Parts: sequence; structure tokens; C-alpha cells
Amino acid sequence: MVDIATRVHNHKWKIDPIVRSLIDTDFYKLLMCQSVFRNKPDTTVTFSLINRTASVPLAKMIDEGELREQLDHVRSLSLTRGESTWLRGNTFYGQRQMFRPDFMEWFENLRLPPYTLERRGDQYELTFEGAWPEVMLWEIPALSILMELRGRAVLHQMGKFELEVLYARAMTKLWEKIEHLRRLPDLKIADFGTRRRHSYLWQDWCVQAMIEGLGSKFTGTSNCLIAMKRDLEAVGTNAHELPMVYSALAQGDEALARAPYDVLADWHEEHSGNLRIILPDTYGTEGFLRNAPDWLAGWTGIRIDSGDPARGAETAIAWWQSRGEDPTTKLVIFSDGLDEAKIEELYAQFHGRVKVSFGWGTLLTNDFRGLANNDALAPFSLVCKAVAADGRPTVKLSDNPEKAMGPESEIARYKRVFGVGEQERMAVVV
Amino acid sequence: MVDIATRVHNHKWKIDPIVRSLIDTDFYKLLMCQSVFRNKPDTTVTFSLINRTASVPLAKMIDEGELREQLDHVRSLSLTRGESTWLRGNTFYGQRQMFRPDFMEWFENLRLPPYTLERRGDQYELTFEGAWPEVMLWEIPALSILMELRGRAVLHQMGKFELEVLYARAMTKLWEKIEHLRRLPDLKIADFGTRRRHSYLWQDWCVQAMIEGLGSKFTGTSNCLIAMKRDLEAVGTNAHELPMVYSALAQGDEALARAPYDVLADWHEEHSGNLRIILPDTYGTEGFLRNAPDWLAGWTGIRIDSGDPARGAETAIAWWQSRGEDPTTKLVIFSDGLDEAKIEELYAQFHGRVKVSFGWGTLLTNDFRGLANNDALAPFSLVCKAVAADGRPTVKLSDNPEKAMGPESEIARYKRVFGVGEQERMAVVV
Repeated sequence: MVDIATRVHNHKWKIDPIVRSLIDTDFYKLLMCQSVFRNKPDTTVTFSLINRTASVPLAKMIDEGELREQLDHVRSLSLTRGESTWLRGNTFYGQRQMFRPDFMEWFENLRLPPYTLERRGDQYELTFEGAWPEVMLWEIPALSILMELRGRAVLHQMGKFELEVLYARAMTKLWEKIEHLRRLPDLKIADFGTRRRHSYLWQDWCVQAMIEGLGSKFTGTSNCLIAMKRDLEAVGTNAHELPMVYSALAQGDEALARAPYDVLADWHEEHSGNLRIILPDTYGTEGFLRNAPDWLAGWTGIRIDSGDPARGAETAIAWWQSRGEDPTTKLVIFSDGLDEAKIEELYAQFHGRVKVSFGWGTLLTNDFRGLANNDALAPFSLVCKAVAADGRPTVKLSDNPEKAMGPESEIARYKRVFGVGEQERMAVVV
Repeated sequence: MVDIATRVHNHKWKIDPIVRSLIDTDFYKLLMCQSVFRNKPDTTVTFSLINRTASVPLAKMIDEGELREQLDHVRSLSLTRGESTWLRGNTFYGQRQMFRPDFMEWFENLRLPPYTLERRGDQYELTFEGAWPEVMLWEIPALSILMELRGRAVLHQMGKFELEVLYARAMTKLWEKIEHLRRLPDLKIADFGTRRRHSYLWQDWCVQAMIEGLGSKFTGTSNCLIAMKRDLEAVGTNAHELPMVYSALAQGDEALARAPYDVLADWHEEHSGNLRIILPDTYGTEGFLRNAPDWLAGWTGIRIDSGDPARGAETAIAWWQSRGEDPTTKLVIFSDGLDEAKIEELYAQFHGRVKVSFGWGTLLTNDFRGLANNDALAPFSLVCKAVAADGRPTVKLSDNPEKAMGPESEIARYKRVFGVGEQERMAVVV
């Protein structure tokens, strides 16, 4: 175990870089990266980091020099021998050699491409433009860096024992959640909290607490470095990024309407079993499922990542039934805005009707709500998204208009093409 | 900062001996030892360890071999060069060379004398017999060892993260007490918690938390090793041991009645200022003060260590007034059964009327109440006392009959000689 409070104290002497490895990232980024490397290696994509919580003035809190130093540090990283061995030799979802030799060779030689950083008012504008398979790997490190630098700005003002007690309280808080969750007999839950974690050391602590507290109910972590270090299953499948870029590249409305299925057709060829998980909400879950080809109904499961999760799951169940599939054989992964109570509620509602699984994110790895003065360590809503592909803007609608992204005219066009009607507005948890 | 949870986990590999230095003891033991070394070096005294909490079956919980190993380890210790330098070179209560060269030379060559250990039912009988200045130094290590071995027996059954969360909760608990206490503007409080501490590492943590949380309101620690390590004032004066042995040695009732004053006459010669603190309760506070010589009223203050503390302090104030002394110039040190609420209450009642000070013991360094299953880590009442001197039994009455010690007939005789009437029975906190 690491004495986190001491280490945080030592940050003043620059001991811990925020990102310490190229595989300190989500497993699904690497899966998607391989898919992109194979199918769309030459697409130019722009990623942009956006702070959806305007009340957190990042540029006032974080020194620009310090931010550049951390970003530059990531550019100095390359895959180590041990990391490469782990990726090449490991079994993921029961499959050996999930990462193909040509991809691994490319990855071993990769250094992350340059970034563009500018200050706009009290916020930073951080963008990454370049070949899709390269720039896409900036997303997670960029988010972790901004989240953790904001945390450090607050922590640096605290005394050594205040720090120790801060972590003592955070530990107690998480442990109490775990003690409650372990009572659910068939719980399956994984760590999805890398992107908005409090810090690397803290995420690592949370994962270890889950291992001890939940045993086999804890099914793994999306963080490859922690999976490697703690001998866990690395978990995750795919994200909105794929349909967003495919859709931006589509020429005309007809191609656009087909784009989200084209992505999954590519994925279908590449992956089987537990990697065949539908993420249906990019342009509205209901329309997506209504218009989906039958082979998609044969996939293993669905991930519910926006909107009211219970409604999303009911929609999926009804859809499977309408296509002659047995929902009890299907996996439903909840991954949006989860905390202990919501997990228990969803478990109670869906356990037995489908195979239920949880990807627990920010409130697993960053629940410092109420622990610092003025709640200065509460998580906030930071995202890093593909905003353009080959010069064309991307669009995301999701099942919650609060999470929509893209130029207004394009949002209107996408809504029309995908037949999205009135949507329920919901507060974004984190 | 030490990661206590890790270290406790490592105990399984015997990393931390419980007592790691001959000065891992209370400062007043060394002061008294020097006095005894000068005044009564040849008295043979027997110390006996007694567990007043029968519901804690020490012999069932603690392996005898492990206990012997820890006790033997203490016998292997001798004063290190650095410790000797610290004792010789330091200023205690503003006085240089408080420890005289002849005493230091003796101490530098000291190894603790043998012990006798037997099992009686579910308890251990642990006794130390020998020259008073030698055996008296067993008291604190013996108590710390039994307390900590009992704790370790419970901790060894806990998982790594359960341990970390246990300490997280204990830290939070103490920090919250400190946050409350720091609001008292003229608070003066010291650590008196060595003898019944949870562990050395934990006491050291508590002391550091007090330093950061209370600043100059924290006046020092009774533990010499921690005082040395953390650059603090070592505090303490004298204890019941002195009048108990002096009284046991007294020939006849008249000499007995005089004995508690004879002790302080010797002390008066040796010490001045803040070391002139009366401990009046050995044979009842009221009688002791009533019959005290006038020069005692000139002493700096009084320590209230049993009975109702407010009543004890009121008795002292009335006594000073009756002897023409100004109570506002006098120091009252509360040191029995203190916790946050009691401290605040006594502070409110006596602040401004006398100089108030607190010696916070078990509930500073061992408040694990409510933190383990079946409250298995709650502190319990273990004492190690001089029970005989030159073959004659010792007696303690105190202001609470629950704390009385000695053969029944002798207790009756002491009550008669010291004029002790009806006493209020009070639960012993710890």
C-alpha cells in the first residue's frame, strides 16, 4: 500500500508525474485504436478538451507552466518492454493475441503527437489534431492531467495532517459503499473511473479496496496499467468516438443514417463474445434500436451511458423481445453517473431479467464531495471529444440534451436524420 | 508520515518490536527514577501487572511465546548514544542538566531486570521484583506490550484494506476531536497516553496530528522517545508510586501519616517551578490537603487523577484560598479519563479561575471504540503498580474506591490513618 497523503505532500517536490505510462489509459481506447489503425488510419481528427463546469475556473487554478510540463511528460513516454509484453501475451476476454502484431509494432514506436494549448478567459483550450489513431490516445491522459492538477491546486494549500485526514475520510467513504454493495449476491462491477479520477494513486487504492472488499464481484478495471499491476482483467469495449467520426465522414444523409451501423459492422468482424456490446445512445437509443439490422440483436449486450438508465434498459429489453431474443441471456452494462444507491436500485430492478453489470466511474475514483472547504475537490464535468474529422464537425446527441455536442445546424440535421424527437433533460452527474 | 496500516500488516513478519527504546517511556518515570536512585536505591519493590477488565481474556488472546519475545526484547535494549545525549543535553522545564551525571551513568549501563510470567486462568500474572530504580522502569513497557499485543491479536484477523480503513476511521475520529478542541482559545493540552496506547506508531501519529492541529495549544508529550523524535517538550512530574512505596516502608501509623509529605519534601529539594505539582489523591485528596504543611500550598499546581475532576479542582481552589494563595496563579492539571467533551466542560468551568491544563491519555492514543467487530479494540483498564516494598504491601485509595488497591486490612488501616470517609464510587473510564 502506498501512503497517499505523504505522496501528495511530496508532490511539491515533483515526485509523481500524473500520467506515468502510455497504458495508463482505458482499455477500450486501445481496442478502438487498433480498429481505427486498421480501418481509418489516415483520417485527420481534432480532439478538444471541454470543461462543462464553468464554475471551476481551471486557468485561474492551474499554472500554465505546470500544465505544459505534465503534457510534455506524456509526450516523452513510450511503451515499455514490460507493457508491450503484457499487451502481447495477455488473454483479454478469453482471447489470446487480441492486439495484432502490426498494431503492436506501431504502438511500440508511438510518441503522442503535439498539443495546442491556449488560455480563454478562466479556461484552457486544449486541442489535439492529427492522425486519428495517434490523437485519440490523448483523450484519457489529457483528462487525468486536468482533473489531477485541479486537485493538486487545492491539496497544496492543506497541511500534512489535514491531507492525511482527507484521505482517511475518502477511504472510509468508499469502504462504506463497498460494504453496502457486497451484500448484492450476484453483483458484477468494474472500475471505469480513469478519466475523471482524483489521481492515479487514488484510483489504484480504490481498485485494491474493491479487490479486497468485493472479491469475485469485482470484475476488473478499464485502466490497463492498473490491470497489469494488480493482475486484473482489463475491461471495456468501444465508445461514442467511433460512430461520431464515422458519421462526420459520411457523405449525405443516407450515408449518415447508415454510419453508426457501419462502425459496428467493422467491429463485428473484428470481435466476438463480450466485446460485442452495443453503445446505442450516440444519436438516440430508441431510433438506433428501431432501425438496427437483425445481426445486432444477436450481440452480447448493451451499454447504457446517458438518459434515464432504467428507461434505457427497458427499451433494450423490449427491443430484444421484439427481435425474438431472450433478454435473460443478454448483458446490460450501466456506466453513467453511478453511485452506490443508483447501483442498488438498478440491480434490484433488472437482476434476473437480464445479466446486469456496472461500470463505476467518477464516484468510485473521485468521490471527494464534502471533504474539502467549499467543496473544492468535488468532481466536475470535464470531457475530451473528437470535434472534427477531415475538417467536418462531429455531432453527439445522446439520450440527454445536456450532453449534446456539435454545431447547432448539424445537431438539427442529425436529429432529423436519426428521427430523434423530444428528449428528457437530465442534470449531468459527472 | 508512516503508513500505519501497511506496518501493522507487516507485523506478521515481525518488523516492529512494540517497545523500541528504553526512553519509549513516560518522562515522569525517569524523573522519579532519578529521585529513587538518590533517596531509596536499595529498596526492593515488586511491580505487578493487573487487568481490571476481566472481560478481556488476555491469556486466551495473546500467545505466551509472543509475549515473552516482546518482554525479552525490552531486556535487550540499552540507552543509545543519541538518547543519552538528548537526556543530558536537553532543557526540561527550562532547566539544563535535569538528569545528574551519576544517574545518567547508571542509566547508560542499565538493562531491565528479569520478569516473572505465569498464566492464571484467562489472565497473565506478570511481576517484576528487584531494586526499585530498576524494576520501576518496567511499568510503561509492560503496559504498552500487553495493550499492543491484544490489539495485534485482533488486527491479525483483518484484511489489508479493512486495516487501512480502520486507521482511516481512527484518524478521522481524532482529527474531529482536535478540530473541536482548537476552538478553545487558551487551551493547554499534552499527550499522556503512552501506557495504554494502541501502538507506538499510532501514538506517534496522534502526537503529530496534535502538533499540526493545535499548534502552541499542544504543550508536549510524556513520551521521551516521541519528544526526542518530534522535537517536543517532554512533560510530566510524579506519580502515586512514590507515596505508595514511602508509605509501605513507614514504621507505624504516625510515620505512615507523614509519608506522603516526606516524599514531597524530597521532591521539593530536588525540583522547582513546573515540576512542583501535587498529586493529592493517593490516600484521599481532602484529607491530604487538610493536613498538608504550608510550604506545599506554595507549590505550582495540582494534578487531579481520580474522583470527580470538577470536585477535585474546587477542593484545591478552596484549599489554596484557605492558605492565602491566589488560585489564578496556580496550575490545575486534569489527567483522568479525559475525552473531548470532558475537556471542554472542565475548560469552561475553570478557565480564568486557575491555569488549566490537560494530560490527555487513553482516549487520545487509543480511541478505537466502535471501530472493530464486537468492539474488540476498545481500550481496557490495565495497570502496573508497585504492590510491595521490602516485603510490605502497598496501598492506594485514590478518590474513587473502584481504583483502590492493597490488602483489605491495610486499606482499612490507611483509611483510618488518613481520615478517609465515604467516597463516591465512579466507573473507571480507562
